[in-house]
Amino acid sequence: MRRGGGKQTAERDKNRRKRRKRFEVRTDLALESRERIQAEKGDQGVSVREWREKNGAISLTEVRVKNDRGAKTIGKPVGTYLTLEMGQVQDQDDGWREDAADEVAAGLRRLAGQALGREEAGGFPGVHVLAVGLGNPYVTPDSLGPRVLGNLRITRKIAEDGDWPVISGIVPGVMAQTGMETAEILTGIIRETKPDLVIAVDALAARTIRRLGTTIQLTDTGIHPGSGVGNHRHGLTKESLGVPVLAIGVPTVVGAAAIAQDTVAAVSAVLEKGSRTKGVGTWLEHMGEEEQYRLIREVLGPELSQLYVTPPDIDETVKLLSFAISEGIHRAFYGI
Amino acid sequence: MRRGGGKQTAERDKNRRKRRKRFEVRTDLALESRERIQAEKGDQGVSVREWREKNGAISLTEVRVKNDRGAKTIGKPVGTYLTLEMGQVQDQDDGWREDAADEVAAGLRRLAGQALGREEAGGFPGVHVLAVGLGNPYVTPDSLGPRVLGNLRITRKIAEDGDWPVISGIVPGVMAQTGMETAEILTGIIRETKPDLVIAVDALAARTIRRLGTTIQLTDTGIHPGSGVGNHRHGLTKESLGVPVLAIGVPTVVGAAAIAQDTVAAVSAVLEKGSRTKGVGTWLEHMGEEEQYRLIREVLGPELSQLYVTPPDIDETVKLLSFAISEGIHRAFYGI
Amino acid sequence: MRRGGGKQTAERDKNRRKRRKRFEVRTDLALESRERIQAEKGDQGVSVREWREKNGAISLTEVRVKNDRGAKTIGKPVGTYLTLEMGQVQDQDDGWREDAADEVAAGLRRLAGQALGREEAGGFPGVHVLAVGLGNPYVTPDSLGPRVLGNLRITRKIAEDGDWPVISGIVPGVMAQTGMETAEILTGIIRETKPDLVIAVDALAARTIRRLGTTIQLTDTGIHPGSGVGNHRHGLTKESLGVPVLAIGVPTVVGAAAIAQDTVAAVSAVLEKGSRTKGVGTWLEHMGEEEQYRLIREVLGPELSQLYVTPPDIDETVKLLSFAISEGIHRAFYGI
Amino acid sequence: MRRGGGKQTAERDKNRRKRRKRFEVRTDLALESRERIQAEKGDQGVSVREWREKNGAISLTEVRVKNDRGAKTIGKPVGTYLTLEMGQVQDQDDGWREDAADEVAAGLRRLAGQALGREEAGGFPGVHVLAVGLGNPYVTPDSLGPRVLGNLRITRKIAEDGDWPVISGIVPGVMAQTGMETAEILTGIIRETKPDLVIAVDALAARTIRRLGTTIQLTDTGIHPGSGVGNHRHGLTKESLGVPVLAIGVPTVVGAAAIAQDTVAAVSAVLEKGSRTKGVGTWLEHMGEEEQYRLIREVLGPELSQLYVTPPDIDETVKLLSFAISEGIHRAFYGI
Repeated sequence: MRRGGGKQTAERDKNRRKRRKRFEVRTDLALESRERIQAEKGDQGVSVREWREKNGAISLTEVRVKNDRGAKTIGKPVGTYLTLEMGQVQDQDDGWREDAADEVAAGLRRLAGQALGREEAGGFPGVHVLAVGLGNPYVTPDSLGPRVLGNLRITRKIAEDGDWPVISGIVPGVMAQTGMETAEILTGIIRETKPDLVIAVDALAARTIRRLGTTIQLTDTGIHPGSGVGNHRHGLTKESLGVPVLAIGVPTVVGAAAIAQDTVAAVSAVLEKGSRTKGVGTWLEHMGEEEQYRLIREVLGPELSQLYVTPPDIDETVKLLSFAISEGIHRAFYGI
Repeated sequence: MRRGGGKQTAERDKNRRKRRKRFEVRTDLALESRERIQAEKGDQGVSVREWREKNGAISLTEVRVKNDRGAKTIGKPVGTYLTLEMGQVQDQDDGWREDAADEVAAGLRRLAGQALGREEAGGFPGVHVLAVGLGNPYVTPDSLGPRVLGNLRITRKIAEDGDWPVISGIVPGVMAQTGMETAEILTGIIRETKPDLVIAVDALAARTIRRLGTTIQLTDTGIHPGSGVGNHRHGLTKESLGVPVLAIGVPTVVGAAAIAQDTVAAVSAVLEKGSRTKGVGTWLEHMGEEEQYRLIREVLGPELSQLYVTPPDIDETVKLLSFAISEGIHRAFYGI
Repeated sequence: MRRGGGKQTAERDKNRRKRRKRFEVRTDLALESRERIQAEKGDQGVSVREWREKNGAISLTEVRVKNDRGAKTIGKPVGTYLTLEMGQVQDQDDGWREDAADEVAAGLRRLAGQALGREEAGGFPGVHVLAVGLGNPYVTPDSLGPRVLGNLRITRKIAEDGDWPVISGIVPGVMAQTGMETAEILTGIIRETKPDLVIAVDALAARTIRRLGTTIQLTDTGIHPGSGVGNHRHGLTKESLGVPVLAIGVPTVVGAAAIAQDTVAAVSAVLEKGSRTKGVGTWLEHMGEEEQYRLIREVLGPELSQLYVTPPDIDETVKLLSFAISEGIHRAFYGI
Repeated sequence: MRRGGGKQTAERDKNRRKRRKRFEVRTDLALESRERIQAEKGDQGVSVREWREKNGAISLTEVRVKNDRGAKTIGKPVGTYLTLEMGQVQDQDDGWREDAADEVAAGLRRLAGQALGREEAGGFPGVHVLAVGLGNPYVTPDSLGPRVLGNLRITRKIAEDGDWPVISGIVPGVMAQTGMETAEILTGIIRETKPDLVIAVDALAARTIRRLGTTIQLTDTGIHPGSGVGNHRHGLTKESLGVPVLAIGVPTVVGAAAIAQDTVAAVSAVLEKGSRTKGVGTWLEHMGEEEQYRLIREVLGPELSQLYVTPPDIDETVKLLSFAISEGIHRAFYGI
């Protein structure tokens, strides 16, 4: 379509992006943010590297958001996002857990080395790591963090000889249970116990169903407001807590709104293919996101942003992944 | 469109119903089945009675499916379905639990009296009730049954003097945990312990989100294949188990497919209102349910029928309702 | 034995007490401390008041330790200790829970009024209470605190209108799980969230088996080092935390050493009654507490002070008492 | 004391044994039964074999009770009892779990081969194993069985191709929760699902504290009345269930009465050593077991046989051992 100079096109793109933003269904995965953005334009301020683990069962993607421009493009803060992708964990053979733990360990060591300004090869002697299990232990897809903490070997107050890192841990609970922001609880604990590094483990919301139980994301950007299954209201970051915060996340839910949005998109595509309805699909797609959004809200009711979609065997998935992650933490810091 | 004769119309209706059937998103609530059916045609073989509890906080609906014709119309087996509806349990004041327990008790006594051929006023002395907590205790929205059982006062083997009913109880687990059909486990236990009545408590799938955590269904038809959050493969009925089976159910999930289907319907309605797109909506609605179904499967992937939608505070809802139900059982059989 | 004037007797008494001290099996109940002391000498600096609740099912004892002399005599810090005693909770009828909750509420209101320097009749509007569930949720007799917190209605961040108190809550976990002293965690949280009052709920060690699951102790002295099932290493008191600390405790275990000590005492008594062995009993009793202690350590091995005795139905007891306590807290602060 | 003839001695021995019997504190470990008996007389009808696992960390003892005479001598039914002993599991390095799982697997394969009359090398293709997790999941030291079942890969209804064994599983709960004997539940299930072999996992009572969390017992004699932490009232044996029953047990408690009995013995020994009290010790030891028993009952109250002693870190011990056992079952039957 030739009409419209470059400026107009840019303007239209901007508006479209803005509208899309408002309508956008949340994802906590940098990988998914980047996939959506990529279609539209070249990444700016974002570098991506992909590779496979030796035996090929796990593929890794590193998204680096290098500056504010990148952050704006991708909608995620500046930092490194390392994503491990595998098939459904429940279909994996027994070696999988070993491989996943190894990759989590390697990723953690690298991010911890950068965050602490140390050579990771040194093994972080004397470093005090505070592990935080975010989420609600009584809601299965939100229980990943508490489960990982339950598996973790806690060594602070037991083995403080300085040759090894020590790990302390807390399961702060969710606001409905505590009446406190997680940030309040952690700020207090950190001031008292002075860890060098926080590792926060959390269940995440993905954009697409096939990510559920197949993906682990490691990042050095901490936890940001609005993220996680429980929708954290405050961030847990180096800025807010005063110590570097690594985050380990596994998508366990998809927002219910995402299902509705995907359905609209699919209907549009179908209409576009029909000879009689050609044009209506495009019209529907561009009917105005406000109208689309209103439509979806109507379908789902005012609880829209609250509801989530999750598979029935999520208990098994969370159990298996929590073991892989706790073993990854053990290997990263205790070398075993 | 040429007006067809009566026969053709009937044929077309039948086909439409058939196609719809295949596409139909599951509900375990007779109330919802009846609502959908009602729009289409007068109920046949189905009687409905509605009333309010004294203080007005709980509304009750009794759907009686009187014969095979009614069963075909509504898609639920012959029997009595009593539904309690209230607002969100978490918004209720403290009297709610008392009221709900009273209504559950009254309903159970009536259904038990009918099932056992006894006067409910007599209080069922000497009757042995086997309470069954269906579902997966480790998946929050599926944990209603196990939670109710955890609250229940079990008296068999303790107080068998014959002046009161005695209750025994079992949490059989789900097939992924046991490798056994629940029906296998219960058949065996029933043959050994010879209860007079089974009360099965289960989490249900509803069709609409606003039913979640607001509704309790009591029925004397037992549990049927395909029902429940975990999709029971075999029925638990008087026919299969040899003793009358009352079922107490609370909808805690909506199938993810329902969200997609509702979205298609909403899109159709929107298109129908637009001058340019008028007709396309109708076309979309009737595009062929196969096509619609294919469309939705595409959106949601092959896990379609597996995924469910649930609210994030489902743990609290399940906890509160499980207390109301266990107290209702206590009042029905122990008179307290 | 006539030799020895008053001074010598006093000296001997002191030594005996000292030795006994070393040997003493721990009790967290002021009531039991006082019972043991009473036999020996008149209470000094300790006042005791006993009464019965209206319907007579619950008996109450208030031990007031008025000064350092009282504290030394009874081995408990200065403050008020209110003890509710009932029969085995599992044998109680349904009214029991109501009565117990009422008494807990009355006691809490009185202690809170004193601690905050307010009229309890005013209902503490605007006061922020931090409830703390001490203990290990995964060890049944130590899970009382976490269970009470699980039942508690948390209102901070939801209802801060100032007409009512607000409650926040935390289950800090035990040191083996966190690598942190509970005092560290709470100090941090209190500095951040500035509660006016802390209520710590904990499982206690009693001296005698018949106290298990029959007793609730309320005190305004907080939690002291060495107390509780998990043997807290640091105190949680107004001095250490900077806000008044009320403690609610239920004895759920008896130290295994207590069983051994009681057995020695019983053997002594038996020997004393035999004509041939008369004298040996006395000898045994006074064989030297060191020797007795050595003897018992030998029997039980070095884990001596670690092991505890608990009844097999402790899960039911903890469940029932946790409901009575959480309802008592609700009534004290929400007036319901 | 006049030297009695052989007959009198035998009579006296028998009486002593009888009295002892009545007084005897229960152990579920054949190893402990045998240790106590050995002191008194040569084993009859009992063979014992001891060896060490390759790397020496685990010692194994096989007690074979060969006939009724052996059964009477040792107080355990005819059959094979294989005991693994290691140090405290919590002090073990990471290889321990592998070694323990290997030994459990080897023992299970041998016992299963004997019970099924098959070559264990063949791997039991097509065999259906019903795993049973006995005990109360809500009482920590009694939760071993349910925990093992929670870790187990259940394959029946998933993989019935006949090349491998299939495992089904059930956690029947305890009588206070179900109002049913475990034997009733299992008889029913077995009749329906027709397993070839039952493996029952249970927490045991030991006689001495140092066995807690250090010992795993495998036997082909099933579960007998009065055994286990929960004191099973009925046996689960080939005779009662109709299929061979292997039992895997870990001692997690010592009866509180054992502590008292040991204390009496220790006091006796001390008295015997004193010049003035010599003779009294012997007298005490033989004061009449009735008197001793009465004495201990008095100390502990009527709950005597109910109370148990357990260490405070039992949650960790049960968790670690449950993994070793479930992995042992996997290796025995799935070869992994």
